[in-house]
Amino acid sequence: MAYPEPLERLIEAFERFPGVGRRTAERLAFHALRDAKARALPEVLERAVRETRLCSECSNVTLGDPCPLCSDGRRDASTICVVEQPRDVEALERAGVYRGRYHVLMGALNPAEGSDEGSLTIPRLVARVRAGAVAEVILATDPDAEGEATALAVLEALERAGLAPRVTRLARGLPAGSAIEYLHRGILEDALDGRRPVGRPAGRGRGASA
Amino acid sequence: MAYPEPLERLIEAFERFPGVGRRTAERLAFHALRDAKARALPEVLERAVRETRLCSECSNVTLGDPCPLCSDGRRDASTICVVEQPRDVEALERAGVYRGRYHVLMGALNPAEGSDEGSLTIPRLVARVRAGAVAEVILATDPDAEGEATALAVLEALERAGLAPRVTRLARGLPAGSAIEYLHRGILEDALDGRRPVGRPAGRGRGASA
Repeated sequence: MAYPEPLERLIEAFERFPGVGRRTAERLAFHALRDAKARALPEVLERAVRETRLCSECSNVTLGDPCPLCSDGRRDASTICVVEQPRDVEALERAGVYRGRYHVLMGALNPAEGSDEGSLTIPRLVARVRAGAVAEVILATDPDAEGEATALAVLEALERAGLAPRVTRLARGLPAGSAIEYLHRGILEDALDGRRPVGRPAGRGRGASA
Repeated sequence: MAYPEPLERLIEAFERFPGVGRRTAERLAFHALRDAKARALPEVLERAVRETRLCSECSNVTLGDPCPLCSDGRRDASTICVVEQPRDVEALERAGVYRGRYHVLMGALNPAEGSDEGSLTIPRLVARVRAGAVAEVILATDPDAEGEATALAVLEALERAGLAPRVTRLARGLPAGSAIEYLHRGILEDALDGRRPVGRPAGRGRGASA
């Protein structure tokens, strides 16, 4: 999945800044899109603002509405994976490990700076779940303080609305392909906290034969 | 916990090689210690080989036997965390998140090259568990193909011996403090596979308030 073309152009414009690589350019572009002051930037930005919108389903940045992912009938509409930003959708799509729908919050809460729930698309998620046919909401915010605060806010919003889909959180632990010797405290703590019983050989299915 | 002094000297000797940093030096030192041909290296190596041994309890490299960790009565002897190499013990001790005992396998199986179980200290682990008072064995091998094969071999060895302690595996998933947008396919797949139900606010205890 590629970005909407005007967004891609905006990213490319940032990429031409000195010292800015592709990833930073993507970050800057999303930030600029969200920031009203960004309108001071030249035409490429104005065009991106003018031509893109948030998908009325998933709130991802899109050219057409609904976005290509929400329009794709082959994707499981009963599962919604809640992410912070469009780049997270990109990462999961690149990985090819998820076939449900998304919901893009367009940001995360910063507990240190006080919450700013108003800027997130949580109400739109609540509306989607209320509309029915959602069996599972997967909280896929980042494994950091902001991501945890954001996941909690989503969970509470669903509960306040009296909605009770199955709500899950992505597993935390050892990153596949890493080496224990290089991992920091938080990761090792998560991995120990979340350890799982293994019994029959190949307790985890795909694990042992990988 | 510091390394045994002769091992520390060996590591420092490797650190003086051009382009070799501390971490690489530690790797080289352990490899050299395990490799008979390493005896061709100068005196510092010979001294390390001469003065260190494998702890008769946990098989970690040690000066005295049992090693300081196995001699520490404050550590929970009913839990054994099984790791591949001494550096993994170092990482877990540095993190300060584990207060049980260890077992160092002194390597990992390489499924691609065919297994070499004979070089691992699995029989010594089986003997420890057979001796009793072990409630849980935590398989803390690396989250890669070698680590999975090694964990499976340990599990099977315990089963063959008719031993049935609780056996767990470190959680795999999102590394704490990371960002989803930068994570690769295997990590995201693990995180989705291992997702956990959350219900009451702060499903995971320490998570939401972190």
